[in-house]
Parts: sequence; structure tokens; C-alpha cells
Amino acid sequence: MALDLLVIAAHPDDAEICVGGTLLRLVDAGKKVGILDLSRGEMGTRGTVADRERETAAADRLLKPAWRGNLGLPDSRLEVTLENRERLARVLRELAPTLVLAQHDEDLHPDHAATGRLAREAWYLSGLARVAERDGGGPPQRARYLFHFMGHVPFEPTLVVDVGAVWARKLELIRCYASQLTPQESADRGQHLLFGADILARAETRARYYGERIGRTHGEPLLARAPLALGDLSVFL
Amino acid sequence: MALDLLVIAAHPDDAEICVGGTLLRLVDAGKKVGILDLSRGEMGTRGTVADRERETAAADRLLKPAWRGNLGLPDSRLEVTLENRERLARVLRELAPTLVLAQHDEDLHPDHAATGRLAREAWYLSGLARVAERDGGGPPQRARYLFHFMGHVPFEPTLVVDVGAVWARKLELIRCYASQLTPQESADRGQHLLFGADILARAETRARYYGERIGRTHGEPLLARAPLALGDLSVFL
Amino acid sequence: MALDLLVIAAHPDDAEICVGGTLLRLVDAGKKVGILDLSRGEMGTRGTVADRERETAAADRLLKPAWRGNLGLPDSRLEVTLENRERLARVLRELAPTLVLAQHDEDLHPDHAATGRLAREAWYLSGLARVAERDGGGPPQRARYLFHFMGHVPFEPTLVVDVGAVWARKLELIRCYASQLTPQESADRGQHLLFGADILARAETRARYYGERIGRTHGEPLLARAPLALGDLSVFL
Amino acid sequence: MALDLLVIAAHPDDAEICVGGTLLRLVDAGKKVGILDLSRGEMGTRGTVADRERETAAADRLLKPAWRGNLGLPDSRLEVTLENRERLARVLRELAPTLVLAQHDEDLHPDHAATGRLAREAWYLSGLARVAERDGGGPPQRARYLFHFMGHVPFEPTLVVDVGAVWARKLELIRCYASQLTPQESADRGQHLLFGADILARAETRARYYGERIGRTHGEPLLARAPLALGDLSVFL
Amino acid sequence: MALDLLVIAAHPDDAEICVGGTLLRLVDAGKKVGILDLSRGEMGTRGTVADRERETAAADRLLKPAWRGNLGLPDSRLEVTLENRERLARVLRELAPTLVLAQHDEDLHPDHAATGRLAREAWYLSGLARVAERDGGGPPQRARYLFHFMGHVPFEPTLVVDVGAVWARKLELIRCYASQLTPQESADRGQHLLFGADILARAETRARYYGERIGRTHGEPLLARAPLALGDLSVFL
Amino acid sequence: MALDLLVIAAHPDDAEICVGGTLLRLVDAGKKVGILDLSRGEMGTRGTVADRERETAAADRLLKPAWRGNLGLPDSRLEVTLENRERLARVLRELAPTLVLAQHDEDLHPDHAATGRLAREAWYLSGLARVAERDGGGPPQRARYLFHFMGHVPFEPTLVVDVGAVWARKLELIRCYASQLTPQESADRGQHLLFGADILARAETRARYYGERIGRTHGEPLLARAPLALGDLSVFL
Repeated sequence: MALDLLVIAAHPDDAEICVGGTLLRLVDAGKKVGILDLSRGEMGTRGTVADRERETAAADRLLKPAWRGNLGLPDSRLEVTLENRERLARVLRELAPTLVLAQHDEDLHPDHAATGRLAREAWYLSGLARVAERDGGGPPQRARYLFHFMGHVPFEPTLVVDVGAVWARKLELIRCYASQLTPQESADRGQHLLFGADILARAETRARYYGERIGRTHGEPLLARAPLALGDLSVFL
Repeated sequence: MALDLLVIAAHPDDAEICVGGTLLRLVDAGKKVGILDLSRGEMGTRGTVADRERETAAADRLLKPAWRGNLGLPDSRLEVTLENRERLARVLRELAPTLVLAQHDEDLHPDHAATGRLAREAWYLSGLARVAERDGGGPPQRARYLFHFMGHVPFEPTLVVDVGAVWARKLELIRCYASQLTPQESADRGQHLLFGADILARAETRARYYGERIGRTHGEPLLARAPLALGDLSVFL
Repeated sequence: MALDLLVIAAHPDDAEICVGGTLLRLVDAGKKVGILDLSRGEMGTRGTVADRERETAAADRLLKPAWRGNLGLPDSRLEVTLENRERLARVLRELAPTLVLAQHDEDLHPDHAATGRLAREAWYLSGLARVAERDGGGPPQRARYLFHFMGHVPFEPTLVVDVGAVWARKLELIRCYASQLTPQESADRGQHLLFGADILARAETRARYYGERIGRTHGEPLLARAPLALGDLSVFL
Repeated sequence: MALDLLVIAAHPDDAEICVGGTLLRLVDAGKKVGILDLSRGEMGTRGTVADRERETAAADRLLKPAWRGNLGLPDSRLEVTLENRERLARVLRELAPTLVLAQHDEDLHPDHAATGRLAREAWYLSGLARVAERDGGGPPQRARYLFHFMGHVPFEPTLVVDVGAVWARKLELIRCYASQLTPQESADRGQHLLFGADILARAETRARYYGERIGRTHGEPLLARAPLALGDLSVFL
Repeated sequence: MALDLLVIAAHPDDAEICVGGTLLRLVDAGKKVGILDLSRGEMGTRGTVADRERETAAADRLLKPAWRGNLGLPDSRLEVTLENRERLARVLRELAPTLVLAQHDEDLHPDHAATGRLAREAWYLSGLARVAERDGGGPPQRARYLFHFMGHVPFEPTLVVDVGAVWARKLELIRCYASQLTPQESADRGQHLLFGADILARAETRARYYGERIGRTHGEPLLARAPLALGDLSVFL
Repeated sequence: MALDLLVIAAHPDDAEICVGGTLLRLVDAGKKVGILDLSRGEMGTRGTVADRERETAAADRLLKPAWRGNLGLPDSRLEVTLENRERLARVLRELAPTLVLAQHDEDLHPDHAATGRLAREAWYLSGLARVAERDGGGPPQRARYLFHFMGHVPFEPTLVVDVGAVWARKLELIRCYASQLTPQESADRGQHLLFGADILARAETRARYYGERIGRTHGEPLLARAPLALGDLSVFL
């Protein structure tokens, strides 16, 4: 399978919360989008693994990704090991995405940071011929770009994707993860512990903030780590 | 006239040397490209003003820009004044480009730095309604992006334009400026004083270096100062 | 008069829009707050000078600053001149603020950038004894800190002031500037030209975004250019 | 126990040398200060483990911290492992500090860098509910701020704590670590190997340098990695 | 043996490709130069281990380093472990180089990044007396400077070494690694997979680009991570 | 006259205070050192112009520069004008220094910042042939390097000059400027207003701080804005 784009994220709802609008637009345009969650999110403050699997399935019915997988690595204990890196590189060769989106390797959440680092290292390795021979998964193949999406640490984005037209549907995607949005006991305020804001409110704020940076209502920020290659500048005309 | 792109440069050959390939590709694609030189280059080490005007005309015959103008400001004495800024903003309203390319405001050559600063300030002012009423040139209009091109100081580019297919023609554009390429007396080595390399050799080196950053043979680097707005990511697929 | 804090801004509504909450909190705490507008905003897209003066007076009735002044410099033509710098330094000696808030000298709007630069230079000069003798305004005095507030260009803030408790009142302050919020003709969308969002919506988005950075509902970001001096760390306990 | 502040450092004298003045001021103000040393410093060039324990006890008699502990990790072999991170997060939940001070994760000394990284990761994890359930140590709790203190690599500080009034006492704290200050054999110059200066002289130089940055005699620099939250600006008045 | 300079690189041809000119100049000046390759390059796309050993021997006959060694770590699986770091520190004590050149710890190739990090950590450890006692290799010794050389990620160099006079010989050094320069099968274009350029062409481009930064024909860029110590400025006169 | 080095500074004591040790070492080595003060320091808090001229003469008797000049520009009103820039470029052509040291263009003191900017622009212009013909002063000549020295804003230095061996003589140089070191009336504490430390104490602190960065007792920090060109690395051996 040759995907157009693969998202690599630590927990099952990270992809939808951070780049759900970007994914909706690509699927709407007929592109093959995949999502690889590294863990099952079993250490999340709310919801059981069974809850989260049902919720992910519901989100998939709305988004209709061409592929979704889960490496089953341990939540809160994601590590940058050779084994994890090589498993991830194998998945990249199997799925052969043109673009990869991954968390940022300086994120505050150690799982997010490890995911970002694993994605960068696996992206590089996926293109080495003898590594491909040794580890399988198909011929060497390296995605054209790896972009980082935003988690707990802001960055000045290289690009902002205009997601105004799909914003209502992105919120539906996030609402699929009901266990994450609802207080489950008296001490649980249903809020993100680090920021004291609920997930939907934070997503709205961030999308508006970056949308305004490009003169639109809602945007999702992405960071490139190398210059973008353009055929000519017509894309901006 | 509504241009697709306007280059703003200090001296008559800067546009061709720095972004000639980018311009060729856009003109080839049927876009309306303009070039505004701020001075006549009368303080250049080689060539008379008459030489340089003939050379610019020759380059125009090859490139076929939709528009070329010259503000006639004093070479080696370009200044960021209100008057220059407002003249430039008026030109921007008259030509209404969607994109602007300008030198970098931290370039070593004081004329280049002044050009970059003037371009940034005029770009902002060109969109203010009452400034437009006061200064003329047409309704308020602000180009979608201002990108800086590279002069004497390197930067990590946001984008690199693939100019491999037009490289031979770009060299022809530069060769039009024969006075700049030829030693005129015994002490003149026909080299750029700051870098000790001739102009064609430097253009070749830079284009190869940035071309390799994007996996192509030749590239021209550009710097954005704000996030790029994308409809979706299809442009990279 | 010895002010606790002086805001220096290019146009009459900049202070309220950018740091209105910070000012409300200080006035509520009994501090003497001053605002110096450098121009009358006569080149704003909407509203006459008379409108804007009435609006400023209305905002002052809500905020009750201890002092408000206007240097009457030309809107859209603010310049960093010796004369402007020395006038501003004289005001600083007269008002003797402990803190100064000013726009950022890299803002996209040339007036904002000039204001930021003038404020920095005047802040330094205000402390030189012979400059004080020559130019008047009282004994040499330099404010303890100059913080920049955010305009059109984001920065990673050093501090974010929690303005959640006064947010409704801050919106009232902004609404005093009704001419800026209302479309005046068919082609006018009542929006900020650069960002395509109306002023109240942008203020809300920004405050929520920076509020979430500190775990609160609304915040106003500030940038320090030198380390903050603390007696001990009790302020964070 | 709910500490006001916990210092996390690689070796038993790092806390006193780098932030001894900051700690003295807080203890003087009646705050509960804790120090967690990750190793016993057994690979230090001078002094035995027994020497260093006696010295630490002497320093504690002067500083009177509310708590001091040692994880007993191997000196010169501190690693960022899941186990170390989870032990540290457990200590953070047990001690529940409002502030954490830790070394910088880009320090030249690999132990210092590992300590800084462990502190950042454990700080994040300490607030996750299910991690707390799994690993014990009390309810989830995340300190309000983690500040880095300065080791072998300078940074531009966010804050400098004025330690002039306690400087003589800080030197007494450092002098408790006599084994570190005295040459032990002919080849030992009693100097810090990397910098060729003795520890007391370096502490004095650094404190004076950063003190001058805030206009005081002695200061200790700290770096925040996120904006500081302020109720209002009165703290600077 | 006390070397003047030791290069630490991940694969057997990295040293020649990246700093071959710098090494030739030092050997010509009578200095003792060493090269430590961390792996045998057995996962390279082209060439067998036997090929590469022959090629390295050929390069050594041209360059005549005073020492060359190989740690035999696994290619594509270089890791920053305590064991690797301590082996490397032991080598540093044994060879006692005054200067160390190593890859950059943010390089895209994970092996290069690991090599850069190992070199930095081992450089620090090599100077600790008790680590030296425990691990052997000779008395504690720390090289005066560690400079990073450039791999897949550009940086603004601190220094550029003028290698114009030895450029032809540097190309000979690279050509010793014939297996890396020749396509081996139909799908192999004999190009570097990441950049789509062959190794000789890339070396030429980079050397010209950095050479022009210093006004020479060819240069090799180096990055220092701490200020350079100078006796006086005569070195530039 | 062809100088080896020219210092460009705003006020008559800046050169001695900031780079006096660097100058002493060069003069001791037989190099031709020049100092160009842009103003007479007539707005300094202490001392008359006559005092300062006597003091400068005394300092010159100790340092023995090959040349010292003063442009007589107005203290506290240094401006980056075309005229000042061209006068400075003319001086550069007349004196033809190989190295230039100047203040930093982001210094807090507006005179220092203007001096830094003037020096950078004049340095570039001094090498343009037609500017030389128009403005006189000799043939076009551009110094090999322009380094910035440190004023009120710290930077991470590219180089630190070891001035330990001449430190006592540097203090003598500073003491020549007695008017700047002595309180003149009751309200004058004889201290630098911005930093609250006297000039000798600040010079000592800074020299020790940067000396320790290079493992020496005293150092003076310099910043390069472009890569340093080295023939080979022997200078560090």
C-alpha cells in the first residue's frame, strides 16, 4: 500500500486532536491517509482501553482513513530504542507514505517527545537499502517530508493548514473520544491537567489562534525541519 | 495592472542573479512578473549607467517580464525614509502583486538591507486605506506573501525553488550583464570584491548547494517571515 | 508625578487592546497607571480624529488611568528621530514610571516598530544626567523594566498576566472604540485588514491562547529583554 | 509533606554551589526547602563518600533544609531510564513541591544533563493519575514551575535571584565541602579541571556577573522554559 | 601517544569526505592526526566490509594518519550507552588528542547524531580522574576543543578551514572509496539516497560554498560549542 | 598608514574599558593599533570635555596606539546617517586596518548601537571602488574581519582573548579616566547608573567571567558575524 500521508502519534486521540482537520481535508480530496498510534493510551487519566478502542473505531467511521494501526507500545513508557525504531521503519516501508506527520521531539510529554524522535530516526532509516533487507517491510523508501504537529510546546509554524471548512467535522472527530471529555469522578474536572482547559476548548483556541496567523478562521500548525521544495511559486498564486 | 509577482531589488542585476530561475519558471507558466530596481547601479565597480541600461534591456528580452521599473534612487545611498517607503507603497498599489520578493534586511550590503526594510514597511503600508487615499496609486492592496531572497548573508530557507530545468537560461540572463563579469583594468580581477569569486561561479555554487538541500540539481532559496497558508497538503503529494 | 506604570503605544486604542486587562488589574490594586499615545490615529481606516478622541475619553472613564497623554506625532509616519526620542525621554523623566510597557520593535506595522524602538532608546536616555539637564523634565530616572507587549508578530513571552477576572471589563474597554469595530461602508468588512478577523474576536483568541499557556482562562503576554530581578522565589509560592 | 521547593542535582554539592543563596533566602523566609541528590558523588576527583556525607551533613546544619535525600544512583553513570524517571516522579509526588530547580539538560557534564532531562520528564509524569496509581508516592501532583540552574553552560537567564544579603553565608555553605576545595596531592591543583579556577572563585565570579545584570552585588541565574504566570505586575513595583 | 587531532566518525569514509582537506593540511604540517571510525560501515548500501577495509587502507596510504582505529560498533545501530561512552573516553585518554573533530549530534542520520553525542560525553568524561582510574587508558586528559563537522544538516560555522591547496588530493582520498561511488546494479544510481547527488559532486559543492564564505576556492566548515581562546589577535593579521 | 587593528567606539573610554587588554597585547607584539572615538563624551555624567581629553592623552601614553582620532560627533546623539557612514568609510580607507573592533548594534545605549551599525555599514562601503573615488581617503579597502566587543548586552562570544598577563596594565588604562571613576557630588555614587557597580568592579567581573570560559584568569569577549577563515588548525595546537 502506498499512503499519501501517515500520522505517527503516541496515543489514540492525538492525531484527531492535533491534525484532524488536515486529515479530513486530505481524505475529502481522495487521498489515502493512515494513522499509526504507538500505544493504546492505557495510562490515560480517563477511560479504559476498551473505551478507547471503541472511540477510535467511531472516529475512524467519520474520518475513513485508508489505514489505522497500533504498535501496542506501553503508554507513559514509550522509549527510543533500536527495536522500536526498526519496527517503525518497517511500517514506513510497508506503507510507503509520501508525507509523515509526527509529534515534536521537544514536547513536554515524554511519550510525545519519544514519538517525535522515533519518527525522525525511523524516517531516515526507512530509506537505507541494507536496513530494508535485514528488517523487511519492502524496498527502501523515505517519505518526502516529515512535518511535526503541535503538542504541549508552541513553535513558530512553517505552514498552517486552513481547516475552517471542516472545523465542525473535526470537533465531531474529537467528540468521538467521549471518555476523554467527561469527568469521571468528583475530583476529576474533565480538564487537561497541564493546562486547566478542556480538550475541545483548547483545540478551538489553538485553531483560531493559528487560523488568524493566516487570515482564516481555523488553522492547524505544522513545522518542517528542512526547506520545502517547490516547482515554482504558482502554488501561492 | 495586477502582477502575479514583483521583485524589489537594489541594483539592476540583483533580481536576475538571485532569483532569475524562479522568474523564468513563472514567466514560462504564463504568470505576470515584474521587477522594480531601486537604483541604476551607478556606483557599481564596473560598467557605466548606459552599459547597465543596455544590459538590463537585453535581460528583459530574454526574461520577458510583464513590467520593469526603476525608482532612480542613489546607488550606495539607499535610505529607509518615509518618502521612499511611500513611493514604494504606491508602486505596490499600482502593480498589485500577489507575491513580493525582496532582499533581506540584514544583508551586509547597506543598499540591500535598506531595500529589504523598505519592502517590508511598504508591503504593510500598501494595505492601509487612508494611506492609499493620501498617496494615490489605487485602492489599498497588500501582497499575500513577502519572501526574502539571499544576498551576502546566508539563512536557513523556508523554501527552495527547483530551477534545474531553466538553469542554462538563468546563466544567459546573468551573462547579459557583461560589464559586471569582465575585468576592466589590470587591478580588476573581474571578481566580487567581498567573496573573491566571479559572479557566475558564485551563482552556480549557491544554486547547487541549495538544490542539493531539496534533492535537485539547482535551487534558489527563499525565506518567509510568517507561516505559509495551505489549503491542504496536496501540493506536496 | 511618579507613575507605577506607563504604556507607550502608537495609536489610541493599542494600549487597551493589547494590555487593557493588565492595566485594569493594576488600577484595581490602587496603582498609578499612565498611557502615552504617540499619534492620534488619524490614518486609521475607520473613524475620525474627533471620534477617536471621544472614544479614548470613554475608555479613560472606565479604566481611570492616573495620566493619559498624546504626543501628536503623525500616524503612519512615526519615525525614530533624535527629536522624538528626546521628547519621549523627557516624558519619562516627568512621569517617572517604575515600569514601561511598549510595542515590539520588530512588529510588522512600521508605526508599532518605531514606537518600540523609540521606547527602548528613550528608556535608556532618560537615565543620563546631562541629557536630563539639557532637555528638562526632571532628574534622570530610568524605569526598572521595559516590557514589550504583543502586536502583529508573536513571541514566546517571558510573562503572561492572568486577566481572567477582568476580562469582561477589558472587552468593555475595547468596545469604547466603536468606530474601529463597525463597518462604515459596503466594502468595509469591519475586520482587521491583515488578519481578516474583527478586533474583539482577535483579542479573545489571543487572550485564551496565552491564558492556556499559564493554565488560566485569559492572559496577556509580555516580553522582557533582560533577566527579571527577584528578591527570593516567594512570589511563585 | 508538601515542600515549597525541591532542588534536584546530580552530586551532593551542586545544589549549594549553584543555588545556595536562593535556598538560604527561602529558608530564612520560613519556606520548606528540600534537596534531592541523585548520586553520592563517589567519582569526584577529591574526597571519599564518607567525606562527602559528613560535608553534606555540615551544610545541612547551616542551611536547615526541611528535607534532604539521595537516590544513590551511580556517579558518572547517571542515565535517563524509565526506572530512574519513575523513581524521581514518585519522590515528586511524595514531596509535592510547588517549585522544582534542576540542572540544565544541555550541560556539558553528562550527569548534569541527565539530571536535567530526568527532572523534566519526571515533573511531567508526576501529574498523571494512573502513573501515580501504578507507581505510588501519593496523588498526582505537578510542581507549578521547573526552573533550570546554571552549570557548565551559560544561558540567558529568565530570572536572577538577588543573593547579596546572604552571600557570606552561601560561601560558608560551599566551604562545608572542604574535600572539594583542597588539593590532595602534588598533581592536584585544587582547581576545577574544566575551568582552571577554584570552586569558590568561580562561584564568586558568576554571582557578581549575574548580580550586575540586575544591578545588585550577587545573583543566581535561573531559566524558565515556559512563560511565568503573574496575577498582576505589582511584584515589580 | 599524544595526537594533535582525533576525528571521531560513524562510518569509515565520513572523515575523508567531511574533513579530508583539514586532515591533509595538518599531516602536511607535520602534525599527528588520528581517525577513529565507530563502525565498519557494514550496512552501507554499496560495498562489502572487505571492500571498505581495503578502501580505508588505500585512503590511509594517501593521508598517512599517525593512527587509525575502529570500535567495531554495529552500523545503523550506534547507540549512546554508558559502555560505548566509556570505551570512547578510554580511547581519548590513550590517544590524548589536543583537538577532537566529531559529527554533529543533531545530524539526520541517527548514527551520526549518536556519534556526535558520544563524542561530547566522552570528551567530558575523559578528564575525570576517578573515571580514568576505574576504566584505564591513562591519566585523565581532556582535549582542548571539540569541533563538530558537517553532515546532513547545515549549521552556521564558527570556522572554515581553507582547503583549496589540497583539494585535488582530498578528491583522491574520497575516490579511494570506490565502492561508494559506483552504481552496483540497475536500480542503483550511484547517488546519495537522501540528496540525489553523488558523493564527489556534493563534496565539491559544499567545499565551494563554504570556501566562498571566506573568500577562498574551497573550505571545510567546523562548529565550536564554546568560545575560542586566543592569546592575542595576531593569528588574523 | 596601514593599521593592524582599528577600534571604533562611541565615547573616549569605551575602547580601554572593553578591549584594553586585547589592545595592550597587540601593541606589545609590535602591531599598529588605532582607536577612533566617534564623540568627545561631552554628555557623560561626570567630567568635562577638557578632563576627558587629558584622560585620553594619559591613556594613550600608557597604551601607545599608532593612531588615535575623534570624529567629534555629538555624544548622546550619534546617528546612522549617510554622512557619518561615509566619513567613517573614508577613515577606514585612510587607515586600512586588517581588523576592526566595534560596539554591538543591539547594545542598550543608543550611541553604542549606532556606532556598531555605522561600523558595519562603513566596513562594507570602504571596499567599493566608486565610493572610494567619490569620497576620497585612498583606494578601496575592506578589513578582513569586523568583531563586535561587549557593552551593555551580553552575547555568546566567538572568541575570548586571554588578557591575564596584561590585566594590571589594563586597570591602569581604565584608571586614567579618573573623572569617570570618582563621585563628583553627594548624589553621585560613582557608579554606572544602569548596573549599580563601579566601572573597575564591572570590568573585573566581566574579565573573570569570560576568562573562566576559556580556563584563564581574565578574558575579553568578541563576536564574529561570519565564519573565521583558518589556514589549518595549527593555531589551536
